Amino acid sequence: MKAARKDSSVAASLPSFSAALPRFRSGRDTPRAFLERCIDTLTAREPKVRAFKTLALDAARAAADASTERYRRGEPLSPVDGCPIGIKDIMDTRDMPTQMGSPAFAGWQPSYDAACVQALRDGGAILPGKTVTTAFACGMSNETTNPLDEQRTPGGSSSGSAAAVGAGMLPAALGTQTQGSLLRPASFCGIVGFKPTWGTLSMQGVHPISATHDHLGVLASTLEDTWRIASHLAVAQGHPACPPLQRASPGLPRAVAPKRLLWLRTEAWPREVDAATASAFDALMQRFAAAGVDVQDASGNAAAAALEACLTPAFADRCLGITAYEMRWPYRQYVERHGALIEKRVHDRMVQAFSMTPADYADRLAGRAAMQRRVAALMRGFDGIVTLSASGPAPLGLSATGSRSFLVYATFLGLPAFSLPLMQVDGLPVGLQFIGRHGRDGDLCARARWMMQSR
Amino acid sequence: MKAARKDSSVAASLPSFSAALPRFRSGRDTPRAFLERCIDTLTAREPKVRAFKTLALDAARAAADASTERYRRGEPLSPVDGCPIGIKDIMDTRDMPTQMGSPAFAGWQPSYDAACVQALRDGGAILPGKTVTTAFACGMSNETTNPLDEQRTPGGSSSGSAAAVGAGMLPAALGTQTQGSLLRPASFCGIVGFKPTWGTLSMQGVHPISATHDHLGVLASTLEDTWRIASHLAVAQGHPACPPLQRASPGLPRAVAPKRLLWLRTEAWPREVDAATASAFDALMQRFAAAGVDVQDASGNAAAAALEACLTPAFADRCLGITAYEMRWPYRQYVERHGALIEKRVHDRMVQAFSMTPADYADRLAGRAAMQRRVAALMRGFDGIVTLSASGPAPLGLSATGSRSFLVYATFLGLPAFSLPLMQVDGLPVGLQFIGRHGRDGDLCARARWMMQSR
Repeated sequence: MKAARKDSSVAASLPSFSAALPRFRSGRDTPRAFLERCIDTLTAREPKVRAFKTLALDAARAAADASTERYRRGEPLSPVDGCPIGIKDIMDTRDMPTQMGSPAFAGWQPSYDAACVQALRDGGAILPGKTVTTAFACGMSNETTNPLDEQRTPGGSSSGSAAAVGAGMLPAALGTQTQGSLLRPASFCGIVGFKPTWGTLSMQGVHPISATHDHLGVLASTLEDTWRIASHLAVAQGHPACPPLQRASPGLPRAVAPKRLLWLRTEAWPREVDAATASAFDALMQRFAAAGVDVQDASGNAAAAALEACLTPAFADRCLGITAYEMRWPYRQYVERHGALIEKRVHDRMVQAFSMTPADYADRLAGRAAMQRRVAALMRGFDGIVTLSASGPAPLGLSATGSRSFLVYATFLGLPAFSLPLMQVDGLPVGLQFIGRHGRDGDLCARARWMMQSR
Repeated sequence: MKAARKDSSVAASLPSFSAALPRFRSGRDTPRAFLERCIDTLTAREPKVRAFKTLALDAARAAADASTERYRRGEPLSPVDGCPIGIKDIMDTRDMPTQMGSPAFAGWQPSYDAACVQALRDGGAILPGKTVTTAFACGMSNETTNPLDEQRTPGGSSSGSAAAVGAGMLPAALGTQTQGSLLRPASFCGIVGFKPTWGTLSMQGVHPISATHDHLGVLASTLEDTWRIASHLAVAQGHPACPPLQRASPGLPRAVAPKRLLWLRTEAWPREVDAATASAFDALMQRFAAAGVDVQDASGNAAAAALEACLTPAFADRCLGITAYEMRWPYRQYVERHGALIEKRVHDRMVQAFSMTPADYADRLAGRAAMQRRVAALMRGFDGIVTLSASGPAPLGLSATGSRSFLVYATFLGLPAFSLPLMQVDGLPVGLQFIGRHGRDGDLCARARWMMQSR
């Protein structure tokens, strides 16, 4: 259990479901008691953090009691039975409104659960509430504050999910990422974020932005809880046509030291990254190197240099056109019906979308596919790409959710990626973004586990 | 215009939008007058045919007046401006209930249009009503009768769409096919059906059955209207990540005589096909052969024999497991909440789905992909596969919607397929199913046009 304890110690004060599980089984702890500890933290911290749009604590307590009884009988329903999990408020829930962070959906109550929610509920997970998102998961800002500094953004769009976990209100929450919406708040809130290979987890019943860029993922206090929940979702309700998560099983894959890593800076590095963050990243790479990892960057490696030459803002802009084009439905209708209630960013995307032809869209899809093949070839022989999850710690202010410069590439390429809370800058967390090869999520997690243990 | 006139003459009495279009442009006819002629037929025939679940004729008349005004100004919005199109009642419509053919959705009113409906409405199409479907497009039966013989089924699940077109109430309607739901009713109602390559047309906002088998398609009185609407949908709102329909433009591709065709009988032929239907099919093949087409079957051609050996009920059963597995969401919730209100067939599928493991599902997906490659190889050098759309004319009675034995293969393989009303048996129509290569919809349509002209 030594390794597992070390994995769990990301932030000693944050609750870990996986760590509590042996005590649920032995009867020394219960899902109800675990939930009550979460609710205690929530009660203390929610007034300032504002992570939740809707709370359903009575229902959560009843569900936790039922789970407690199942553990008493030795019959938990699944590896997530009894785990309190926050649900981003763009995911349909049959018993709580789903308001999309937008006045256009104020009070909207779906009749059925999204596929991911169905999978959690069927597995006995506890769903205490809906977490704050920016509008339609692509808006500019919202009311949630960073649990580590209320003057700062928690990041977005999965703001409430990350802040609830970072504040210790919940061990885990679901989020989505279409550009940087999951790994960015994970970085800013000092927790683990994981976006599996595109398509691994079902987006059915989750409000879409861009069908070929939308990723469902998990935010959690520990790598173990992250993997446990992602693997449960993949097994119970994977995305149609996508094989289950590689090595999907509730327990973490065995830690494996990476042999070779590609360090990707991108042109944003000199422009966006301050000296303290750059220095923290350098120190982390030196630590990896000292442990025997061969970390290559563009200065000394042709593949790394080629990667820097590929993954440019020009490529990201081309992909952003794909997002805009795919947003025509249903956002065209939102703009028409709700006008100024819909954020300007969405209006702008519609203008872009309706200036594109189907041939433009097809061209961009083909360009993206070519880049996926190119990057796959460049990653051959490496265990993954390492870069920042964000250009630094959470910025001051709540009017914007931070830079996505380092996050868009793994998203647009559909590659699995973690944000691991492995750096501190000025006392605030900064995440290492660790990007793997398509469909090799289990291999990536094994190396991520080694990184978490190497601290 | 000779060829076009011939194409239009599928059933001389049925309205054709494409045929009327020149008169809209010249002012000799108008969308409003066209709609009124449809409504006259609807008023006369709907009491017996029962094709519609919801009618919105006032709104349709207002939309037709607006379209008339656009043609007067010489500014139609799209190639479908002014075309009355029926919408299958599993497709969300913001102004009409969407009831899924199920008491579980009685009176349910969506807030927004499905992607296909948005594309039609934005293009100025007229939407007079929602057409009857079997429950969730996978149920056993419903109230609609065959417009050619009220004692017979119109086929299903796109029953109302096919019957409305077959009765002359509308020139066209949207349908879906997950096994045989579009081409079967096209065959029984004597009209054209077209299911493009899987993924070409967006299913967003259409109730799902099986994400990797669900196809959106078009039912129409003429091949021209079929193609016009499908190409508009592909251009205006294609499925994410799928390139637009090959040769998507409102006008039909030039007719091209097929050189070589594969005649697929399947093991169902001796079991299900009566002598009169077999004879009608033979005669059609002889007519093709007399016109210079090389029609090969298993008796004389190795590829045809191999195809017969591949496309077996055992393969179809394996794919049906994929459908069941993909139905877990949301049907698990429907069964739980509505119990006996949900048809037994869905309950049975849920039992099957929850007996399958993710590995079973992955195995079946891999088997399907292998079959797609195998069939693509066998089709090389051929212009397509010809077989029946149904085992004969519409059967008597309304308690079932007919055999899907000949239709499941093109569906499960995701290949483009037409049903062309090229045979008559006992005075009732039987469709030729014409299956093309993946993504080669335009080539298939060019050959289909030749077939329609060769009558």
